[in-house]
Amino acid sequence: MTATEATQHGRTGESPIAPAAEPQPAPGATPPRRPPLLAKAAAELVGAAALVAIVVGSGIQATELTKDVGLQLLANSTATVFGLGVLIALFGPVSGAHFNPAVTLAEWWTARRGGPGVTLREAAVYVPAQIVGAVAGSVLADAMFGEPLVKWSTHDRSAGHLLLGEVVATAGLILLIFGLARTDRLRFAPVAVASYIGAAYWFTSSTSFANPAVTIGRAFTDTFAGIAPASVAGFIGMQLVGVVVGLALVALVFMPGREVTE
Amino acid sequence: MTATEATQHGRTGESPIAPAAEPQPAPGATPPRRPPLLAKAAAELVGAAALVAIVVGSGIQATELTKDVGLQLLANSTATVFGLGVLIALFGPVSGAHFNPAVTLAEWWTARRGGPGVTLREAAVYVPAQIVGAVAGSVLADAMFGEPLVKWSTHDRSAGHLLLGEVVATAGLILLIFGLARTDRLRFAPVAVASYIGAAYWFTSSTSFANPAVTIGRAFTDTFAGIAPASVAGFIGMQLVGVVVGLALVALVFMPGREVTE
Amino acid sequence: MTATEATQHGRTGESPIAPAAEPQPAPGATPPRRPPLLAKAAAELVGAAALVAIVVGSGIQATELTKDVGLQLLANSTATVFGLGVLIALFGPVSGAHFNPAVTLAEWWTARRGGPGVTLREAAVYVPAQIVGAVAGSVLADAMFGEPLVKWSTHDRSAGHLLLGEVVATAGLILLIFGLARTDRLRFAPVAVASYIGAAYWFTSSTSFANPAVTIGRAFTDTFAGIAPASVAGFIGMQLVGVVVGLALVALVFMPGREVTE
Amino acid sequence: MTATEATQHGRTGESPIAPAAEPQPAPGATPPRRPPLLAKAAAELVGAAALVAIVVGSGIQATELTKDVGLQLLANSTATVFGLGVLIALFGPVSGAHFNPAVTLAEWWTARRGGPGVTLREAAVYVPAQIVGAVAGSVLADAMFGEPLVKWSTHDRSAGHLLLGEVVATAGLILLIFGLARTDRLRFAPVAVASYIGAAYWFTSSTSFANPAVTIGRAFTDTFAGIAPASVAGFIGMQLVGVVVGLALVALVFMPGREVTE
Repeated sequence: MTATEATQHGRTGESPIAPAAEPQPAPGATPPRRPPLLAKAAAELVGAAALVAIVVGSGIQATELTKDVGLQLLANSTATVFGLGVLIALFGPVSGAHFNPAVTLAEWWTARRGGPGVTLREAAVYVPAQIVGAVAGSVLADAMFGEPLVKWSTHDRSAGHLLLGEVVATAGLILLIFGLARTDRLRFAPVAVASYIGAAYWFTSSTSFANPAVTIGRAFTDTFAGIAPASVAGFIGMQLVGVVVGLALVALVFMPGREVTE
Repeated sequence: MTATEATQHGRTGESPIAPAAEPQPAPGATPPRRPPLLAKAAAELVGAAALVAIVVGSGIQATELTKDVGLQLLANSTATVFGLGVLIALFGPVSGAHFNPAVTLAEWWTARRGGPGVTLREAAVYVPAQIVGAVAGSVLADAMFGEPLVKWSTHDRSAGHLLLGEVVATAGLILLIFGLARTDRLRFAPVAVASYIGAAYWFTSSTSFANPAVTIGRAFTDTFAGIAPASVAGFIGMQLVGVVVGLALVALVFMPGREVTE
Repeated sequence: MTATEATQHGRTGESPIAPAAEPQPAPGATPPRRPPLLAKAAAELVGAAALVAIVVGSGIQATELTKDVGLQLLANSTATVFGLGVLIALFGPVSGAHFNPAVTLAEWWTARRGGPGVTLREAAVYVPAQIVGAVAGSVLADAMFGEPLVKWSTHDRSAGHLLLGEVVATAGLILLIFGLARTDRLRFAPVAVASYIGAAYWFTSSTSFANPAVTIGRAFTDTFAGIAPASVAGFIGMQLVGVVVGLALVALVFMPGREVTE
Repeated sequence: MTATEATQHGRTGESPIAPAAEPQPAPGATPPRRPPLLAKAAAELVGAAALVAIVVGSGIQATELTKDVGLQLLANSTATVFGLGVLIALFGPVSGAHFNPAVTLAEWWTARRGGPGVTLREAAVYVPAQIVGAVAGSVLADAMFGEPLVKWSTHDRSAGHLLLGEVVATAGLILLIFGLARTDRLRFAPVAVASYIGAAYWFTSSTSFANPAVTIGRAFTDTFAGIAPASVAGFIGMQLVGVVVGLALVALVFMPGREVTE
């Protein structure tokens, strides 16, 4: 959901101390009108393309400049933090800045009986836009660095502990986004989500793909950030498990029924 | 105390220029209702687990990728800054986001004669939740990287100058949190506390554990961030000394009696 | 355009939920009076000089301290993020903090039929000030590090994939600035633009000059950040192509006609 | 001057679009009462001590962990950015968070005929507190790392281009602080000043001491961040020149008479 929708459908006005009664100067601010679906689809496509171009491109640049793999990952993660935060800030008011089928799916699921979130029709447009964008971003990164435009990655990522890493990475992402939403603070998403990914690059063994569209896009490049096509299905499966774990944690800590029953 | 409690019990409304009369758009914003104790305990447990998983996990990742110990600590500290800031922002409105028995203890102590802070009953729930979470986080990090789930650390940290480092690290943390609280600015805690720890990793000789629960959790992993069980008691003792020093500095600089007497 | 002008000419007040009806506490805040053109020119000149001194100076410092080129670029990009963000925050209320003929040109173009942005007269003052400042900054950096004050760079940057990188870098910059402007959020420009450049240093093959004045200034120093004079025209040409691409993307995603027709 | 004083004495209320009419949610917010001089002195002393402990301590840690001097400076500058930002945020509402005789002097000078800033009596308390604090911080850092508590630095820093670096570093600092003050945006000082120093570590040849008290303190430790006593006077002299240059730039760009005459 966008910050707009959170305001329109949320618990605003229940109380004089409710957060939504406060000014909301941070990213994700209210656009003047609801953007049409075409603009939303364009935002998701361009955003996903830019995100993958950032991840793949900075990985190539890093491997060209240093042989220290730790430094390569530090450059890669730092560039991603900066870039992802900007993309969420820029496109948040248009589409909600998902760039991620796992997030779109979780939003549709939690909103299916009403409440803020994408509709089924929107989800059916978002997900293909995200995947097409992610592949385009991978190709664009390869082109910028003079690499073959499409070359399947040979980077095997199928070890069991990597799969656990993906569950943790995605569960944390979902917990963060929906926890912010339940406390009416999605305006912090640009900094919070980017920072989370910056940590998750390092503390999860899988370097935190946490995004099915990005996972697919990264299969198209045989560079630092690539993933072998044979490892893609396993990663995406674990990401979906992570969505379920994340939503369960949201229910535990942020207790959706609380405001009603108490 | 949470930002909510600071607002409810604070010096709000004394003056038209009082800070609490200002909008409070930053992290730690007011939740619609006071969360029940179960949600608070869950937030402290999940938060402490995530914090230790970040510290331990990023340490393992760093040592796997580079041999330069300086770069290992830079990756470790950078991941911690990002992760800790997100955790405080996310869980602040629920539990106050202590994740740290030293902070919980200091809050109970300063609030024992009234004022904002945890009650004795809350403290008695928070501290065990923090310790259980911290141990779980250590085990989770080991699992994600295919390390033995529990293996006592062999990293001795008992040198006298390291103990001084822990006093300084904890005193600074307490000074920061309670200084922000006394000036009604706990909404800056996510960025401020995370940044402080980012500096303290480097400027204290002990790399700034500054947290008894995290210290216990880090004894369970024989990796970069571990601490030998025999060094745990010394670190925790110095952290408690740091709490006292920190509260004394708060009294010196922020002068609690000022608002009343002047 | 400055945040002031965005407020004065923007879509403020169209709706009770319009963003401009919100407080605007972030950088780029409203100055009490419109600064005179001389102050604006001084801000653009000093700002461009400082920007190039930061880029060139940190590049020299980095090459003096380490042989790892990856680390050199990490230091260079980190210093630029910090410095550029400060410069935009500081000079934004005076001149809009362009420091960049591509941005000035795009603003004049979009504002030529009315609306917020620089006038032709302002643009004719801004661009020379930016170029003079950029050259001065390069000379200053060389002087601070005991390098020859002016020595043409020998760093050839003419490969085709580098040119594509400049198109992408500049298109992204324009999309960001004008996307923020169209959603009345230019107050986030200091952090957003600096973060964008921090990512673009790494994910574009050209390390993201994205600025004709800075490109000219960097030809005057034969150090890490230099560019051979023979490569300058190609870079600037691609930057102008990037402006066109960026404005097209703004039209696609942020749909300027939307507010009117819907 | 503190943000409080800027609000009390500033150009607030001149216009409905004046910045001070906006909410001020950022660091440097208004304390409920004016702190007494003892609290201000304590804040300046503790703050300067912490600042030097951060600079010196992180330098020692870095040299113990890596042989790459570039990485040493990156760790040193990163820790300083985080730590300085926190210190300004924490102590700003008490003393204005100068920690720097150059800033105190410039404030007294600009305020001597009225307007916001420290009085002569305050300046006479601030400067000794800053110097004592800086020396104490140096000794504390040495103690934390098991170094001799006081050992004169042998690090010669007297080359001419380093002195130019110090002029540039201090001029930029003064331009930033007073530029923010003139546009009523001192609430951004924690992030802006810390970021500026983060850039100036790298883009000035002197690594930007820009502070006479810190310069004195750093003479007391023969470690990474030290400065030979024989180089101290030269650095301080250049810092004073930088103050003059910085105030001249403020007059040029921010034109103090503008609000009156226009």
